[in-house]
Amino acid sequence: MTRPAIDLRSDTVTRPTPAMRKAMAEAEVGDDVYDEDPTVKALERRTAELFGMEAALFMPSGTMTNQVAIGVHVAPGDEVLCDASAHIYVWEGGGIARLSNATTRPIEGDRGLLSLGLLQGKIRPDDCHYARTRLVSLENTQNRGGGWVHPLESVAEISTWARSNGLAMHLDGARIMNAVVASGVAAREWARHFDTLSVCFSKGLGAPVGSALAGSGDLIRKAHRLRKAFGGGMRQAGIIAAGALFALENHVERLAEDHANAQILAHAVEQTEGLSLESGPVETNLVWVTVDPALGTASEVAAQLLEVGVLVSALGPQVLRACTHLDVSREQVEVAAEAIRSLGSRRL
Amino acid sequence: MTRPAIDLRSDTVTRPTPAMRKAMAEAEVGDDVYDEDPTVKALERRTAELFGMEAALFMPSGTMTNQVAIGVHVAPGDEVLCDASAHIYVWEGGGIARLSNATTRPIEGDRGLLSLGLLQGKIRPDDCHYARTRLVSLENTQNRGGGWVHPLESVAEISTWARSNGLAMHLDGARIMNAVVASGVAAREWARHFDTLSVCFSKGLGAPVGSALAGSGDLIRKAHRLRKAFGGGMRQAGIIAAGALFALENHVERLAEDHANAQILAHAVEQTEGLSLESGPVETNLVWVTVDPALGTASEVAAQLLEVGVLVSALGPQVLRACTHLDVSREQVEVAAEAIRSLGSRRL
Amino acid sequence: MTRPAIDLRSDTVTRPTPAMRKAMAEAEVGDDVYDEDPTVKALERRTAELFGMEAALFMPSGTMTNQVAIGVHVAPGDEVLCDASAHIYVWEGGGIARLSNATTRPIEGDRGLLSLGLLQGKIRPDDCHYARTRLVSLENTQNRGGGWVHPLESVAEISTWARSNGLAMHLDGARIMNAVVASGVAAREWARHFDTLSVCFSKGLGAPVGSALAGSGDLIRKAHRLRKAFGGGMRQAGIIAAGALFALENHVERLAEDHANAQILAHAVEQTEGLSLESGPVETNLVWVTVDPALGTASEVAAQLLEVGVLVSALGPQVLRACTHLDVSREQVEVAAEAIRSLGSRRL
Amino acid sequence: MTRPAIDLRSDTVTRPTPAMRKAMAEAEVGDDVYDEDPTVKALERRTAELFGMEAALFMPSGTMTNQVAIGVHVAPGDEVLCDASAHIYVWEGGGIARLSNATTRPIEGDRGLLSLGLLQGKIRPDDCHYARTRLVSLENTQNRGGGWVHPLESVAEISTWARSNGLAMHLDGARIMNAVVASGVAAREWARHFDTLSVCFSKGLGAPVGSALAGSGDLIRKAHRLRKAFGGGMRQAGIIAAGALFALENHVERLAEDHANAQILAHAVEQTEGLSLESGPVETNLVWVTVDPALGTASEVAAQLLEVGVLVSALGPQVLRACTHLDVSREQVEVAAEAIRSLGSRRL
Repeated sequence: MTRPAIDLRSDTVTRPTPAMRKAMAEAEVGDDVYDEDPTVKALERRTAELFGMEAALFMPSGTMTNQVAIGVHVAPGDEVLCDASAHIYVWEGGGIARLSNATTRPIEGDRGLLSLGLLQGKIRPDDCHYARTRLVSLENTQNRGGGWVHPLESVAEISTWARSNGLAMHLDGARIMNAVVASGVAAREWARHFDTLSVCFSKGLGAPVGSALAGSGDLIRKAHRLRKAFGGGMRQAGIIAAGALFALENHVERLAEDHANAQILAHAVEQTEGLSLESGPVETNLVWVTVDPALGTASEVAAQLLEVGVLVSALGPQVLRACTHLDVSREQVEVAAEAIRSLGSRRL
Repeated sequence: MTRPAIDLRSDTVTRPTPAMRKAMAEAEVGDDVYDEDPTVKALERRTAELFGMEAALFMPSGTMTNQVAIGVHVAPGDEVLCDASAHIYVWEGGGIARLSNATTRPIEGDRGLLSLGLLQGKIRPDDCHYARTRLVSLENTQNRGGGWVHPLESVAEISTWARSNGLAMHLDGARIMNAVVASGVAAREWARHFDTLSVCFSKGLGAPVGSALAGSGDLIRKAHRLRKAFGGGMRQAGIIAAGALFALENHVERLAEDHANAQILAHAVEQTEGLSLESGPVETNLVWVTVDPALGTASEVAAQLLEVGVLVSALGPQVLRACTHLDVSREQVEVAAEAIRSLGSRRL
Repeated sequence: MTRPAIDLRSDTVTRPTPAMRKAMAEAEVGDDVYDEDPTVKALERRTAELFGMEAALFMPSGTMTNQVAIGVHVAPGDEVLCDASAHIYVWEGGGIARLSNATTRPIEGDRGLLSLGLLQGKIRPDDCHYARTRLVSLENTQNRGGGWVHPLESVAEISTWARSNGLAMHLDGARIMNAVVASGVAAREWARHFDTLSVCFSKGLGAPVGSALAGSGDLIRKAHRLRKAFGGGMRQAGIIAAGALFALENHVERLAEDHANAQILAHAVEQTEGLSLESGPVETNLVWVTVDPALGTASEVAAQLLEVGVLVSALGPQVLRACTHLDVSREQVEVAAEAIRSLGSRRL
Repeated sequence: MTRPAIDLRSDTVTRPTPAMRKAMAEAEVGDDVYDEDPTVKALERRTAELFGMEAALFMPSGTMTNQVAIGVHVAPGDEVLCDASAHIYVWEGGGIARLSNATTRPIEGDRGLLSLGLLQGKIRPDDCHYARTRLVSLENTQNRGGGWVHPLESVAEISTWARSNGLAMHLDGARIMNAVVASGVAAREWARHFDTLSVCFSKGLGAPVGSALAGSGDLIRKAHRLRKAFGGGMRQAGIIAAGALFALENHVERLAEDHANAQILAHAVEQTEGLSLESGPVETNLVWVTVDPALGTASEVAAQLLEVGVLVSALGPQVLRACTHLDVSREQVEVAAEAIRSLGSRRL
C-alpha cells in the first residue's frame, strides 16, 4: 500500500506532534529521583489540580500507576472487586496477585460497568476463611465494555457504599479525559468519588510515554515508595513529562473530534450487514464490533481491511476494535468507514 | 436442651471414636521431619495406592494440601481456572494470590460444577498482557454446589482438554470418598484425570486432623519442600496419621449411611413450605437449603432449629446447609427431619 | 546394633510417653475451626498465662508460629533484623521472603546472639530506595550458636532500642523453656520484651506435634487469619494439644536433667583430642562440636558413633551437634560420652 | 551562590546535551508495546551486540532491569548470593523479596567485591529446610565499594564455579561501561560470564532515562513478560531510547575523562587532613571519602562544600561520595578539589 496506513488499532499508537516534540526537546529537567525535575513537578501539580487531589506522581505506564495504586490500598490476602473485563485484572499480567498478593473477585458488569446492585452482597464476611474485601476499582471510560462512560450517579452510589463499608476506591482513568469530554462532567467531579485515580497521557492525549497517579498526600507518599520498588523511578523524566504536560494543555478538548470520528465508524458498522456494535451506541472513541461468522472471523475481516490500508484490532474470535485518535483525521476516518461498508458487499 | 445436640453444621465436627482413639494412642511414631514416622509413611503409602498415584504427603489441613498443590503447579503471574464457588478460591483466605502470587479466573459452573463447554475459550492468549493460564482445579464432591458428584465423563473431557493445552489438573478431593461411594467409581478412576489430588481425613471420614496430597513422585517432592515453608512439617505426626489411617480403613463404606441420612433431610426440606433444595436432588451428605423470606432469614431459621437441639449452618442470607456424618445417627436425623418439617407449620 | 540407639540428633525426636499418650487418648475435643475445642483453648490460655500475654494460638509447627508472627508484623518490602544463623532465616525454607515478601538483614552475632551494639545503625534510612526496617527477631536459646541463653539485660536493651525506634520484637522461643530453666528467669520476664513469642512443644518438652504463638489480643487475631491461610487451622486438634498441655505441666522442670546431661557430653568433648566445643561452655541441652580434620570429617565421626549406637547430627563439614532430651537417660548419656572419648584414642 | 553548582552527588544528575536532545527530538518512534518502535529496536540490537548477547530489552530504570532479571532467574523460596552492599539488595526497595519472593544471602566482600573464596560453601544444602540457592549477582563497577572494577579473572572464577553448581549469573552493570573503559576489557568479554546483564544509560553515559537488560533470547522473552507486569512497557519509548542510543555512540570513550577527574578529587582527599579514601585507590568515577569526626560529620562537611557551590552526597554518618560525570568539567573538578583541600585548613 502506498498511502499511509490508517491505524485504528489503538489510541496508544499516536506519535508526538512537532509541537509536542519541541516541548520535550526544550524541557527543563533535573534528577527526579532527587525530586529535582521541574517539568515532572509541574506535570504532577497540574494533574493534582485537574483532579482536585492533593498530590500526583508520574510513572512510565498506566499499568504501573494502576498496580502501584492497588499495592497502596491492599495487603496480602485482600480482595479487589472489579468488572470481569477490567484492564487491571485482564491486561496487566496478573499484577494484582503477582505484585500485591491480592485476590480478585471479578464481577460481570453491564458492558464493563459495575453498579451498586451488582456490588451489594459482594463483601466477604469478616472471617478467617475469606479474603478481606478491601478495594473497588472502576474504569472510566471502560475499554472492553465499548468505551462507555460510567454514569456519574452510579459512580457516586458505588463510592458511597464502598466508603461506608470501609473499602477504598480506585479509578483506572486511562481514558478519564475521554469521559470528561464526552460527559461534560469536570475531572474533579469524577475524582472526588475516588481515593486514587490513574490518568494515562499516552492514549488519546497523544503523549509518547507516561501516566500519573493522583490521590491524597499520604497515599502518594506510599505510592512513591512502591514506584521505586517497581522500577518506576526515572532520572531526567522531564523530557517525557513535557510531552504529557503538552498533551494536558493542548489535546484534551480535541478528544471531541475523536468521539465524532468514532460515530462515523459506528454508523458505517451499523450500515454493514454482518457487522454490529458489540455494546450498543458508541459514546467515546472506541468502536467494538461483533463480526457475524458469515462474514468470516475477526482476523479475516481485519486482514481484508489491512489490504486497503485500514488497521483494526482483532480482540476475540469474532470481535474487532477500532479506535479513533489524534493521528487519524476526519478524512482518514471517512476512508475507513467506506472500507468497512465495502466489507458487506464483498461477502456477496 | 438436655439432649445432646444434633450437629449438622459440618462433617468436620466429628469426634474420634473410641476405636480411633485407641489406634492413635498406640500408634508407632518417629520424627517425620527426619522421614522416620512409620505411621505417617503407612498412611502416605495407603493413600497413594488408593488413588493409584506414585506418592502422597500428609499435612495438617485440606487448605494446606490444596494450596501446596497450587504452589507446585503455578509460578507467579499464572492463572488458575476454577468454579466461582470453589473452596480453594473462596474459603482458603485468598491463598492462591497470597501464597502463590497467582490470579484466579473464577467461572460460574452449574451448581459448582465446571464443564468442558464452560472452560473452552478461557485460556488467555500467550501475550505479555495476560496472566499465563496454568491450572484447572475441580472439586468433587462440590461443597457449595450442593455436594454434587462431578460426572466422571465431564471430568475426563475437561482433563483431556486441559492436558492437550498444557494445563495441569488438580482435584480438591476434600470429599472425594463421598463421590467414590455415591458413584461407585473407584478412587483411582477419578484420580487418573488429575496431576494432584487432595483428600481430607477430617471431614466425612471422621479423623480429627489431616489431609493428604497425592501425585507423581516429582510433584510430591516439590510439595514436600513447600509444606516445610508453609509450616506443615510435623514431628511425631503418626499420632494423628493413625486416626486418618483408621478412618481410611473403617469409615469409607459407611459414608453410604450419611448419604441415606441426607436423603431423609432432603425429603423433609421438600415437604416443608418455605424451604427448598438449593441445588436440586441431593447426591451425597450435603443438603443446601434455600429459605423463603416468608419463613424468615437463614439465621432465624437456624436459631429456631437450635432451640430444638438441631444445629445447621447459615451460609448466606437465605441459605442453610445441613451435613450428615459419622456423629449423627439415623435416629437423630429422623429427629432433625421432624424439626425441619415443623418449621413449615410454625409459620402459620 | 542390638541395643536401642542413643539418639542425640535433635530434641525433636522424642516420642510421647505412656502418660502423655493417655492424656491425648482421653482429650476432650471439638472443632477448633469453630473455636470449640476445649483442650486447644486450655492450652492457649495456659500458654498465654505462662508468658503473661493476652492470647495465644496453637499451630502445627514452630516454623508456622514464627512465619505467622513475621507475617503479622511486616508488610511487603519491609526488612527483618536477625542473627545470620537464626532459624527463621536459615531453616524455614526462605519463608520470610516467600510468605511475607520481606527482606532480611542478617547480622553476625556472637555465637548467634545479637546485642544492642550490633543492631545500632542497622535501621535503614526512611527513603524510598530502602526496605523499611520493621522487626527484630531474637532466638532464645539460640540453636546454631550453641544453645546459649540470650542474657536478659541484652534482650531488654535491644527491646528498649527497638521499641523506641518503632520496631516490633519477636522471639523465636522454640527452646525458651530451656532458657527459663537454665537461667531461672521466669517465662513472663523474658516475654515482656517481645510483641510476639513462639514456643515449641515438640522439642525438649516432648510433645509429638505443635507450637504456640503468644502476643496481644490484636496480634493474635491477625495471626489467626494468617494461620488459616497457611493451612494451619486444624479440626479436633485437642488430641495433639493435649500432648502439649501435658508437656507444659510435666516436662518443664525436668529440662534441668537434659542440661546436666549435656554437661557430661560437653566434658567428654573437652577431654577428646580432635574435638572441641564450637561455642565455648554449654549452657543448655545443645552441644555443638568442632571436629579437627585430623579426626576426619563430621560425617565420618558421626558414622563412627553410629557404629556404637550413638546418633549425632553432622551439620557442617566439620561440625557436629548432640542434643539431650527426654528420651535419653543419664545412663545413655554416659555411654555416649564414653563413645565420644573413645574417638580420640581411635585416631592413634 | 551565583556560579552554577558543581554537582558531584551522582552521575545520574547529568542533563541531556543539545546534541542528545536533538537526537531525541528527531527520533523515529512507534508503539513499542506493539513492538513497532524502530529506535527502541535499534537500541536493543545495539546493546545486544555490544555485549555479545542474543537480545536486549529497554526499560525505564536500572532498578527495573535488575529486578526483572532476578525475577527471571528465581522462583519463590530461592536465594540470591550477592555482596552485602549490592545495589540490588540495599537500594532497590527490598525488591528481591517484595517482587520475586526470594531471600538474599548477603556476603561481606572486599570493598564490595565478592571472590570465589567468599562464595564457596555458601550454597545451601538441597533440603526442604533451606532456601534453594539459585543466583549469583555481581556489580561492576561496584558503587558502594568505591567504584572498583571487579577483576576479570575473579569474575571468570566465580562464573565457572556458579555454573558448575547450577547457579545463574547476573551482572548489575549500572556502570559496566566505566569498567570497560577503566580496564580496557571489552564489554563482551565481561558479558560472557553472565546469563543476564543490566546496563544503565542514565548514569555516566548521560542519557535522561533508561536501562537495558541483555541475555539469551529465551531469558529476554521471559523478561519481556515480567517488564509488562512491573509496568515497564512504554509506548513511543523511542524518544528516550534515542537519548540512550546517542549516549552509547558518543559518551562511552569520554568516561576516561571522568576517571581522570576522579583522580584529581582523590588526590585532593589524600592531601586533606581529616579525609581519607574509604576504599583505597580510586579506579573509576566514584570517590568515597571517610570523614574524620574531628572534621565534623559527613553532613557537616557536605554543608561546608555546598557553601562554595560543591555538592557531594553524605551517605553515612562519616561517609561522603563524590562522583564525576559528563556535566562536570575539568575546570570545575579543579575548583572542587581546591574546596576539598580547604576543608583541612578550615578546621584549624
